[in-house]
Amino acid sequence: MKGIGVSPGIVIGKVLLKEEKKIIIEKKDIINCEDEVKRYKVAMENSKSEIQDIYNNVLKSMGEKEATIFEAHLMILEDPEMLQQIEKKIQDDKVNAEWALKEISEMFIAMFDAMDNEYMKERAADIKDVTARLMKKLLNIEDVNFSQLANEVVIVARDLTPSDTSQIDKKKVLGFITEIGGRTSHSAIMARTLEIPAIVAVKDIASIVKNGDLIVFDGEEGLIYINPEEKIVKLYEEKKEEYNRYQKELDLLIGKESITTDGIKVELSANIGTPKDLESVLNNDGEGIGLYRSEFLYMDRTSAPTEQEQYEAYKEVAQKMKNKPVVIRTLDVGGDKELDYLNLPSEMNPFLGYRAIRVCLDKVDIFKTQLRAILRASAYGNIKIMFPMISSIEELRAAKAILEEVKNDLHKENIAFNEKLEVGIMIEIPAAAIISDLFAREVDFFSIGTNDLIQYTTAVDRMNEKISHLYNPFHPALLRLVKMVIDNAHKENKWVGMCGEVAGDPKLIPVLIGMGLDEFSMSPISILKARGIIRNISQEKMRDLAQQVVNLPTATEVEKFIEKNINLKN
Amino acid sequence: MKGIGVSPGIVIGKVLLKEEKKIIIEKKDIINCEDEVKRYKVAMENSKSEIQDIYNNVLKSMGEKEATIFEAHLMILEDPEMLQQIEKKIQDDKVNAEWALKEISEMFIAMFDAMDNEYMKERAADIKDVTARLMKKLLNIEDVNFSQLANEVVIVARDLTPSDTSQIDKKKVLGFITEIGGRTSHSAIMARTLEIPAIVAVKDIASIVKNGDLIVFDGEEGLIYINPEEKIVKLYEEKKEEYNRYQKELDLLIGKESITTDGIKVELSANIGTPKDLESVLNNDGEGIGLYRSEFLYMDRTSAPTEQEQYEAYKEVAQKMKNKPVVIRTLDVGGDKELDYLNLPSEMNPFLGYRAIRVCLDKVDIFKTQLRAILRASAYGNIKIMFPMISSIEELRAAKAILEEVKNDLHKENIAFNEKLEVGIMIEIPAAAIISDLFAREVDFFSIGTNDLIQYTTAVDRMNEKISHLYNPFHPALLRLVKMVIDNAHKENKWVGMCGEVAGDPKLIPVLIGMGLDEFSMSPISILKARGIIRNISQEKMRDLAQQVVNLPTATEVEKFIEKNINLKN
Repeated sequence: MKGIGVSPGIVIGKVLLKEEKKIIIEKKDIINCEDEVKRYKVAMENSKSEIQDIYNNVLKSMGEKEATIFEAHLMILEDPEMLQQIEKKIQDDKVNAEWALKEISEMFIAMFDAMDNEYMKERAADIKDVTARLMKKLLNIEDVNFSQLANEVVIVARDLTPSDTSQIDKKKVLGFITEIGGRTSHSAIMARTLEIPAIVAVKDIASIVKNGDLIVFDGEEGLIYINPEEKIVKLYEEKKEEYNRYQKELDLLIGKESITTDGIKVELSANIGTPKDLESVLNNDGEGIGLYRSEFLYMDRTSAPTEQEQYEAYKEVAQKMKNKPVVIRTLDVGGDKELDYLNLPSEMNPFLGYRAIRVCLDKVDIFKTQLRAILRASAYGNIKIMFPMISSIEELRAAKAILEEVKNDLHKENIAFNEKLEVGIMIEIPAAAIISDLFAREVDFFSIGTNDLIQYTTAVDRMNEKISHLYNPFHPALLRLVKMVIDNAHKENKWVGMCGEVAGDPKLIPVLIGMGLDEFSMSPISILKARGIIRNISQEKMRDLAQQVVNLPTATEVEKFIEKNINLKN
Repeated sequence: MKGIGVSPGIVIGKVLLKEEKKIIIEKKDIINCEDEVKRYKVAMENSKSEIQDIYNNVLKSMGEKEATIFEAHLMILEDPEMLQQIEKKIQDDKVNAEWALKEISEMFIAMFDAMDNEYMKERAADIKDVTARLMKKLLNIEDVNFSQLANEVVIVARDLTPSDTSQIDKKKVLGFITEIGGRTSHSAIMARTLEIPAIVAVKDIASIVKNGDLIVFDGEEGLIYINPEEKIVKLYEEKKEEYNRYQKELDLLIGKESITTDGIKVELSANIGTPKDLESVLNNDGEGIGLYRSEFLYMDRTSAPTEQEQYEAYKEVAQKMKNKPVVIRTLDVGGDKELDYLNLPSEMNPFLGYRAIRVCLDKVDIFKTQLRAILRASAYGNIKIMFPMISSIEELRAAKAILEEVKNDLHKENIAFNEKLEVGIMIEIPAAAIISDLFAREVDFFSIGTNDLIQYTTAVDRMNEKISHLYNPFHPALLRLVKMVIDNAHKENKWVGMCGEVAGDPKLIPVLIGMGLDEFSMSPISILKARGIIRNISQEKMRDLAQQVVNLPTATEVEKFIEKNINLKN
């Protein structure tokens, strides 16, 4: 089988399925209602103690706030109202517990859901969660807990949610394969962050493999073997050794410069979400943080982080990176990233909606708090500010005006910050790329966000399986925009980085070198490989290559042309 | 009050509110259950006869297929299962009929909805409709029927759905005002199509005005007066006369050429949805059909139209337009336009999803049927084919290959068609604009779809109220793309049209003339006004203007610059 290899490495291991079968509940007549009620009560007690365990764990590892939700779940299971009705239904209608649970819970969920009140709607979601757990207990369906694995496994799932991946124990999970997703889906990004080999977009795999099947795959090529012959296993064992050897070779590049054969130095930086990610950045010799996704500070909580909390996080990163640049992207929520406490509207097309700078220019208090925290932290390192989702000069000016206000406040309060802090914008909306000549006059730098830029330029939601074939980083329109942005910035003597997936793509790095990109920001694990590529090419030659690819008509031709003209080994 | 004027004309009339109050049902104890059941039965009989009336009307005016849904509704009201339970609940629990209806219907809806079966889900929707009607009868809430109005009215609503606007009787509805929407929302487009003055995006108007209030507005400026003083009414009566005079002046342009003062002739065409729209096109002296939205043929039915049905519709338009060009856009569904029988997936970002050519290249049979119908009709007039949502050369080539197959089939069957039929594409995705030099070599013409092009270029869903201020046709990035597309087409001697809203914008028409646009396709009612503008400007002067606006940094400056430099009163 074949999928999209999204995180490199060779995996040989046993399958652990994350099962997500659609549960179909049938109504059955029950003769012995007593036993049925007993069965129901046992399931309920089991659910309770399970939730109690989760509550304790979460309380310990994540704190009180995060544990609250499980407290609410427990309360539902201890509340007589709904659960006695289920018991009554089993006895009155002489039906199986599953049917009674389904009928009564659906009624309650519909009831709460129908109320025009956020609190009540949340209760509906809680009841859904709790009754789903109870149903699984009744049906003896066990949920896999990725954080408590006894053996090394390869996870196979239809999809992995953020809560799944947050549980993953790197020591036990050798790799994973999902049915949906693409190079830039959440699961793929998490795989690279965790440095776990992974393949996505493998049709039907979760219904083909069984628990315990031997599975062998290459997270770069995307090839998968299920219960292969001995000689395939051998082959992949050798490949794995070779891969490890290659990794060791890469380690030799630590401490070396990122410089082309004709002496052009570029910066190889890392994308991070939280200070925790710094370990991997430092291990892989990242030369800076090209994208600090500050929104992670805002997630999984019930209110926005305070200025002090943010300040400490930004300061920690700035200090640990010594004097290396740290580009903090201001809050980028909305789109596929929701925050309950911001009450973001639900939208028909969230990717074309109220998000990032659009939210910040509207909710100015939240924006100011963040800017204050960043400015204060800027006294402790080489911090730069970057605004996301800028589509017009007006927005940039509005954001800069607010930044000036905050600076003035800090001046008045005699609080230190870097007076010369650089201010840049993400170029991720086509409009921004098209008028980048105008933007270049008003910012210190650009960072091209290729993930979104591809989406908008080609009108393709990259998460949408039906059309994911149209999401292609080799599209000549994208490459032309990138070239245009770099040229426009350089005319104004501004530097240009790139923090989308393309920046770490071995085939596109030579093209970007040819276009004159100054900074490449990527997953930490891609840095040394990129350095290896850059140290083996000359910018002058790549300039010709770049000039030629932007005139090719199709993405396929672009990719083939690059493959033909560049030796990608090393 | 002020909103966005989306359809011109002066209106002076009495308000008719389309009320959409959130109905909150309270549980009440009932002593006399007999009476309550009686009340419930009366409401049910009233609902039944109402649906029967609608059924008869729809059957007569629209045909059997469209009437089916109301037959289904009737069956629900005649089915004992659910309705006897309501009766029983009133009696057993001694509650009011509304509460009983709410409780039981929600249970049934949840039940049907929970079933993993499209048919059952449709039943849930039917039950929702029917019980909502019944609930309104119980609460004495009257639904307004826009097709059966006794007096002339001005409709005020939160929003008008397609089913609302389809009912509107032009003779009785003087104008309408809605709370949501923008220049290109459904209600705005319908207003222009029906030639009814309208204003959208008027916050809270539906809760401010009352039925019977005197309302005065100008559908161009967007100004609204509620119960104004006598002198305002007088003023608007004069304005109305003046407007009518102006309309008569425009009528003098019928039969005149669309030519600039320096002798450049352009084509002023119309956008249509169905052959019915031709009347307005001919009345307004349209010089062709620049956009025939073929998807209307596919809507409001349970299966795709046959080749013969399509052929007849296309042929009718081609023949009625004599030898004038008729550009048929192939099926553009998905996005906000769903067709049940195509089983389109529900998507997180439908505007960035599986739609238009993406669907057609996937469901080739449907595409081939349409192409056959278009080709056959091409023997009877000046038909051209246009593919929507093209984002890559590969897609264009794939679509053209299918067209060739269909042509070969017709040859073999000795069926006549226009061998030289022109093939073009919509330029509505930024990628297509950016590589329009490459596309120009492989098509006969372009038509720029500005509505979508603005959306994707600025990453703004134009239907999203929260960010509608960012959707701006004066954005310099859009104007640059338009110029680039026109220049690229002309280099290959291909013609360029525009079929988005911008093509009919009085302020932008001069800029487009300056850029060399060859064809302008718009709402039929905008054609004569556009002709008046074009006959008063010189292309040479406008060329300078166009050159200058694309170098301005902001949309506001672009708009002001145009206003300053062009005298829009002709």
